[in-house]
Amino acid sequence: MLFKHIYEEGLAQGSYFIGCQSQGTAIVVDPRRDIQVYLDEAQKNGMKIVAVAETHIHADYLSGARELAKATGARLYLSDEGDENWKYRGLEGFDYQLVRDGDQIRLGNITLTVVHTPGHTPEHISFLVQDGAAASEPGFFLTGDFVFVGDIGRPDLLEEAAGLLGTAEPGARRMFRSLKEKFLTLPDYVQVWPGHGAGSACGKGLGAVASTTVGYERRFAWWADYLRTGDEEGFVKALLSGQPEAPYYFAQMKRLNRDGMPILGDLSIPHQLTPEQFQQKLSEGALLVDTRDKLAFAGGHLKGAINIPAGKNFSTWAGWLLPYDRDLVLLASPERVGELVKQLIRIGLDRVVGYIPGLEGYAQGELETVPQVTAAQAKALWEKGEATILDVRGADEYLAGHIPGAQNIHAGRVMNNLNRIPKDKPVVVHCLGGDRSSTAISALMGAGFSNLVNLTGGIRAWQQEGFPIEKGPSREMVNA
Amino acid sequence: MLFKHIYEEGLAQGSYFIGCQSQGTAIVVDPRRDIQVYLDEAQKNGMKIVAVAETHIHADYLSGARELAKATGARLYLSDEGDENWKYRGLEGFDYQLVRDGDQIRLGNITLTVVHTPGHTPEHISFLVQDGAAASEPGFFLTGDFVFVGDIGRPDLLEEAAGLLGTAEPGARRMFRSLKEKFLTLPDYVQVWPGHGAGSACGKGLGAVASTTVGYERRFAWWADYLRTGDEEGFVKALLSGQPEAPYYFAQMKRLNRDGMPILGDLSIPHQLTPEQFQQKLSEGALLVDTRDKLAFAGGHLKGAINIPAGKNFSTWAGWLLPYDRDLVLLASPERVGELVKQLIRIGLDRVVGYIPGLEGYAQGELETVPQVTAAQAKALWEKGEATILDVRGADEYLAGHIPGAQNIHAGRVMNNLNRIPKDKPVVVHCLGGDRSSTAISALMGAGFSNLVNLTGGIRAWQQEGFPIEKGPSREMVNA
Amino acid sequence: MLFKHIYEEGLAQGSYFIGCQSQGTAIVVDPRRDIQVYLDEAQKNGMKIVAVAETHIHADYLSGARELAKATGARLYLSDEGDENWKYRGLEGFDYQLVRDGDQIRLGNITLTVVHTPGHTPEHISFLVQDGAAASEPGFFLTGDFVFVGDIGRPDLLEEAAGLLGTAEPGARRMFRSLKEKFLTLPDYVQVWPGHGAGSACGKGLGAVASTTVGYERRFAWWADYLRTGDEEGFVKALLSGQPEAPYYFAQMKRLNRDGMPILGDLSIPHQLTPEQFQQKLSEGALLVDTRDKLAFAGGHLKGAINIPAGKNFSTWAGWLLPYDRDLVLLASPERVGELVKQLIRIGLDRVVGYIPGLEGYAQGELETVPQVTAAQAKALWEKGEATILDVRGADEYLAGHIPGAQNIHAGRVMNNLNRIPKDKPVVVHCLGGDRSSTAISALMGAGFSNLVNLTGGIRAWQQEGFPIEKGPSREMVNA
Amino acid sequence: MLFKHIYEEGLAQGSYFIGCQSQGTAIVVDPRRDIQVYLDEAQKNGMKIVAVAETHIHADYLSGARELAKATGARLYLSDEGDENWKYRGLEGFDYQLVRDGDQIRLGNITLTVVHTPGHTPEHISFLVQDGAAASEPGFFLTGDFVFVGDIGRPDLLEEAAGLLGTAEPGARRMFRSLKEKFLTLPDYVQVWPGHGAGSACGKGLGAVASTTVGYERRFAWWADYLRTGDEEGFVKALLSGQPEAPYYFAQMKRLNRDGMPILGDLSIPHQLTPEQFQQKLSEGALLVDTRDKLAFAGGHLKGAINIPAGKNFSTWAGWLLPYDRDLVLLASPERVGELVKQLIRIGLDRVVGYIPGLEGYAQGELETVPQVTAAQAKALWEKGEATILDVRGADEYLAGHIPGAQNIHAGRVMNNLNRIPKDKPVVVHCLGGDRSSTAISALMGAGFSNLVNLTGGIRAWQQEGFPIEKGPSREMVNA
Repeated sequence: MLFKHIYEEGLAQGSYFIGCQSQGTAIVVDPRRDIQVYLDEAQKNGMKIVAVAETHIHADYLSGARELAKATGARLYLSDEGDENWKYRGLEGFDYQLVRDGDQIRLGNITLTVVHTPGHTPEHISFLVQDGAAASEPGFFLTGDFVFVGDIGRPDLLEEAAGLLGTAEPGARRMFRSLKEKFLTLPDYVQVWPGHGAGSACGKGLGAVASTTVGYERRFAWWADYLRTGDEEGFVKALLSGQPEAPYYFAQMKRLNRDGMPILGDLSIPHQLTPEQFQQKLSEGALLVDTRDKLAFAGGHLKGAINIPAGKNFSTWAGWLLPYDRDLVLLASPERVGELVKQLIRIGLDRVVGYIPGLEGYAQGELETVPQVTAAQAKALWEKGEATILDVRGADEYLAGHIPGAQNIHAGRVMNNLNRIPKDKPVVVHCLGGDRSSTAISALMGAGFSNLVNLTGGIRAWQQEGFPIEKGPSREMVNA
Repeated sequence: MLFKHIYEEGLAQGSYFIGCQSQGTAIVVDPRRDIQVYLDEAQKNGMKIVAVAETHIHADYLSGARELAKATGARLYLSDEGDENWKYRGLEGFDYQLVRDGDQIRLGNITLTVVHTPGHTPEHISFLVQDGAAASEPGFFLTGDFVFVGDIGRPDLLEEAAGLLGTAEPGARRMFRSLKEKFLTLPDYVQVWPGHGAGSACGKGLGAVASTTVGYERRFAWWADYLRTGDEEGFVKALLSGQPEAPYYFAQMKRLNRDGMPILGDLSIPHQLTPEQFQQKLSEGALLVDTRDKLAFAGGHLKGAINIPAGKNFSTWAGWLLPYDRDLVLLASPERVGELVKQLIRIGLDRVVGYIPGLEGYAQGELETVPQVTAAQAKALWEKGEATILDVRGADEYLAGHIPGAQNIHAGRVMNNLNRIPKDKPVVVHCLGGDRSSTAISALMGAGFSNLVNLTGGIRAWQQEGFPIEKGPSREMVNA
Repeated sequence: MLFKHIYEEGLAQGSYFIGCQSQGTAIVVDPRRDIQVYLDEAQKNGMKIVAVAETHIHADYLSGARELAKATGARLYLSDEGDENWKYRGLEGFDYQLVRDGDQIRLGNITLTVVHTPGHTPEHISFLVQDGAAASEPGFFLTGDFVFVGDIGRPDLLEEAAGLLGTAEPGARRMFRSLKEKFLTLPDYVQVWPGHGAGSACGKGLGAVASTTVGYERRFAWWADYLRTGDEEGFVKALLSGQPEAPYYFAQMKRLNRDGMPILGDLSIPHQLTPEQFQQKLSEGALLVDTRDKLAFAGGHLKGAINIPAGKNFSTWAGWLLPYDRDLVLLASPERVGELVKQLIRIGLDRVVGYIPGLEGYAQGELETVPQVTAAQAKALWEKGEATILDVRGADEYLAGHIPGAQNIHAGRVMNNLNRIPKDKPVVVHCLGGDRSSTAISALMGAGFSNLVNLTGGIRAWQQEGFPIEKGPSREMVNA
Repeated sequence: MLFKHIYEEGLAQGSYFIGCQSQGTAIVVDPRRDIQVYLDEAQKNGMKIVAVAETHIHADYLSGARELAKATGARLYLSDEGDENWKYRGLEGFDYQLVRDGDQIRLGNITLTVVHTPGHTPEHISFLVQDGAAASEPGFFLTGDFVFVGDIGRPDLLEEAAGLLGTAEPGARRMFRSLKEKFLTLPDYVQVWPGHGAGSACGKGLGAVASTTVGYERRFAWWADYLRTGDEEGFVKALLSGQPEAPYYFAQMKRLNRDGMPILGDLSIPHQLTPEQFQQKLSEGALLVDTRDKLAFAGGHLKGAINIPAGKNFSTWAGWLLPYDRDLVLLASPERVGELVKQLIRIGLDRVVGYIPGLEGYAQGELETVPQVTAAQAKALWEKGEATILDVRGADEYLAGHIPGAQNIHAGRVMNNLNRIPKDKPVVVHCLGGDRSSTAISALMGAGFSNLVNLTGGIRAWQQEGFPIEKGPSREMVNA
């Protein structure tokens, strides 16, 4: 058996390429949308991809299952569990098979057994993998967003991101049952390979370890005690508390992954715009996504541009803040454009219509800068009450310690909370170190705010000066 | 004035970017179809391309004039000389101006004066360029295919390539007049910048020097004496004799350049095919263009593939031998695909539908090899009369010295002369060193010939052994 | 905890980057010699490498432990087990600590406990890793060449490769005890991460799965039954039988890894040679390593060159066949030179003095080709006894089925068996598909053989024709 | 003949590759120090470089003549004109020939005739090139820094850059004679190919045209009238007036080019430093050269770094401001490091000891920013006399129009004029658009100035606001 974990760092997303060497066939589980990596793997190993499977209808990225099936002629294996809202659609023209708990997919010596594991979502399935050439029992459990390393999938994602009220608690109870009946009944030695690693918004406290075992989680996971004692209520409460904010684009991903997304066929890199073409695109409503780092953006940028630095969190912030209904132009170095476009396509942002390599020759008139204050200057403003402090970190970071009286709006959500931000006095925006505040400020400046200043160095700089910190909710939050 | 000669080696094609720094505007003369190079030049110099001009309706490559006008909004300046057959068509939707002898194009301090210089083609114009900031007279002459360095344009191109009988001699006489009345009336010091350098099929003996002067050509060009003595008949005879073979695709280029070609808008690189997609394309009639070098092709290749090595003559041989009505698949290293596609697009071969990076994983069953004979083995076959010798070099090379009794068919024309090649006994194919014979053999093998062997090292190896050489036409050629 | 498996496919070699996020420090276990990958990992995660450890004195690649310690100032942790022959030397100038069974290395919340696990080598140690932030017990076992996925390290490596007679059996017995006392006493759920994956010459039947668990191996490993029943004799016999050939360079690696190797400091890419420099290097004794594929090499190559195609087995074949005492010149495309040099440096082949991008301009006179025979032609020669058949696959492949009467010499060992290959009649060389035979033929041609022909398509082509196959040893082998 | 103009944009430097196709040999005139471009040209054309020549001892870049001779074994042809101070030294070990006016270099059909043309420097020679296969007279004149397109070499370079007082005027008179006796005696039609194009500091008003002709310059050059009328005094005065500032590194280049520079042999790209190595280098005195653009530098940079943006003027500003006696570390994207190192090596800055790809992970503590003022803010300060205005453009730009009362110090010379810049009140620094002021500010901040602010958008922004401008010298300059 060839077992390969293919990991995409931007989305912290794991997919699996499993091949039978004797038969020369392979299956891919949970592929991402830019599928060349799987085609390359098949070619390198002299294998043919004959099956593509999904653990569930993903919310955080656009699935590549249909894309890969189209390119290779492989059969799709998709969950037939869950109610009407969770049934795949638009599968005409594909060779597909809907599967249920207990069904098996065979690939030469290899067998994948479907295990229905609802909780994160109702239709969620996992796959027990047996390498028949090596063992008489399954040794691997592909758990998707069911069990992570040291954590489990969150059942509240759609309630949080798409406002599907009342779905979180039933999901948590289903999760309890799935753990008890499906996970903990497996032998200790079975390896657990999940659909996400550290950094994903799909779980609470994901560690930076790729895999775990049933026995290890049984003993050391945070939820292990609740299961051992049968404390379902405690489990539900713990699971639903303290989950991080979820991006709004998740609802869109969910729908597209269920109903079908455009098949790319080929991934063409957009071309460099001439200055004339660039002006034309802007005048037609395109948004300039400035992917330079925060320092360059602060030093000078084009009015109206949003700053999402090309870095490991690029796709995450793009998902939070970029619109799905506008054309996008990237400001990026030519060497990086291809990779950035891939990152956008992974979450369905397909509307990149070109790029510009820099501002020289493209910017007309004066550039806009981001005003900066040092921690000392911010403290002076804060003491006199002359400025609002806007903390754009996550709620958990905020609760762990913030500038007294600071308001908290997650950077990805500022555009949905415009009325909570004053326009009549200075607003000092900060995060931990300055990346998120740059992104949030750029989005707000694009929305017309001209009273924002950035706290250079973020709350880290504030703390280094020994300035006061408050823990827990502030009065402001309580009232909000 | 900014004066930039932009040279494309594959086609030996020269275009010109001329800009006025004080006004920030530029004109491009005779652009090629992949126009990014001009856009880059404009951006680098902070200039806007406002005009695009052509010297004539090109036959050897697809013009980028319309493509560039589309991308920049520049005005097209095109010849209004020549009869109905030589009028541009399909210009609706472009901002264009037809020009005649004496017309002027102004760009800030710079003036281009149109000079009608028929001969190569009837509508051919040249441009006298004056840098008003530096001089009171023009200092540069953009001559297109009128005057080259040490040579002049051939008037027989379409008679030769497209069978337009009877056009060569009148063209030669027009050329005589253009030289006399338009070229030789200019001052000695004027620089001459032509549309082609060494290696083009548009002139007889192009040297590898980019530019010349009126005075230098007046004294040292091969045609100078005829003009000095007024010997038009001698001139016509000299000009029409000994011109090299012209590719058949020239007729197609001519038509597209006159009537309009597809606007690319963007140049997308085709993607790597999966083995399944590759088989699918082949079964649908696509042709595999094997761009590896001759050694690799000889060592093993896929049956039916044609060998056009990725090198400096790639586009030339592609023009000679690739069909315009079939899909193409490239066998090429991923790093080179982009450049090769550009080279094909320059001559209108737009139908590349994908590429494969190598044969591993793509070839099913045994590979075909190219049988090789050494010079000694070839001589033995030749002495016994057991093999035909097929010399695929140009006629001029053949006449300068060939294997006695060898048949001569230019490598680019073998497909049009299939009935002249025996199928019933071995055919030893050779050129000078082995590149052209590999291409010719691959084309013939694709057409069903199985009796071909390659003379390793070409006629060079034959000569190194001291084997006999014959000069002038062979009896065979005389009868042909 | 950050736990990252860093895998080098050419050597099938696994190293581990383990970091403590809260403290910002990291340890690297079994680094390879080109260390940039670890430095990048550290930077990406904002960590400082403070410790470097080795499981044992490696034989199959040059360790990067000292290189990495030098670049980062990290402390070296090396085994103090084993007798005098197995003690590290030349550690002056390094910050190092020799460790023994039970010693612990601490990194913030993380603890690595040393476990002495002799068998593969006497001084071999493994590391139990505990993530104190997540669990009260270790969850990971870094086993080096002790336990692989589905296999265990071979104790006969040096007897096989370096002629250290009598070391294999004692090693096998030590291995039995290490498994019994150190491995099988661990809980089922512990993950096992070894030092090699599929393709390494360090184990017998390595699968293509990166990790396993104690429980899985306890139940399903081939050796599990011997341990369960306490059958040490059966275990020893099984372990020592059927091990593949080991490269001779292993002895050299062993010595350098124990005593110290040159510190690279920086990895400079050799430059492209001019034709003059190339001739100069050859005349001074440099060997040309032709990294083109077998088809191109067969089509034409420079006399004296050895063919090691740039592919996934490049470093393996380089180790088998390239000399450590000659300068090397690569024939490779410029894009690949950097990667190839890295692969050579990983096994201590540091003497690449330049590269040439192709043969054009570098080859003087006629190129040498590799004569080819089809399966049918080979059968005719074989039937008449006019040729020797030389099978250059591994002994296990040979035993599983070969051309009757064929001689078997592993491709990597032909240079040590020159006297077993006839010079007076044709020798048909083959492997499975043609890669290894090309390499073997090139080495033999360099040694003066001129009677070799390659069986195109290898034994695969022979079998497809339905020609006879013999299993087990041939009479020839018995006598050898 | 193959005649190739090889142009390096950073230095606006032209070299020439001239080859005889029939003989397969070539000469290179005025090569730059990174010689791969010439080796590539030779290989592409199947030629051997057998001769390397120089027009004079260059001052603005390090010659590659010795480097190229070393790599190819070519013979060096160097001027034997000029007095003792201008004799080449350190030529032991090279195959060289010193040449004088009238000497000839022959290459197959090609002849280069040496013409002594002092003026720019005393030993300066030019080469008349005759293509014997095409013409009975020379057609090309390689003029080095004697005659440029529309201009002539400046004779005051060393007086200006190295303080060699009294050398400018005699040089101007020699220039007059060289023009009269050597240049104007040639026929009109001869092409003139100089050693520099636009942008070089070696001439007064270089246009962006690569070549000219004797006849064109005779009629239209600014100096033509002085020669026609024999007005040597007027010529000298005109030539010596208004020459731009010359970099101090010119004196160093001159000396190295005369006496010999280190032979690189190979051009190794420095490696990426770890954070520890970076701190180590800084503590040992290395200077961080921050090659990001001015916006990023202004947004945040490491204290002590100098900002020289990676752009077309990189090597020019590096020459002006980087020290030759300190190690250098580059802050640059990995893709660009190679090119930047080449640019530095071209002017002898060989001490790059590593690079860092960004500030993340490398900067400890707070970053320094560059304070910005808008034109309006600057005007307010200026009106109240609260700030000094420092104009760092060239003197000619300053004289053409500046902010009234502004002080003028060329950006490249600020470090030599530290005492002219006040430390006790704000200094508003500006150039035309902001690049040079960023570089100047970074150098001054590194020298301890903390009272500098940048005028965003430079004097362009000032003028757009309609604020006052003064022409000619200011009172301040008169007194200076």
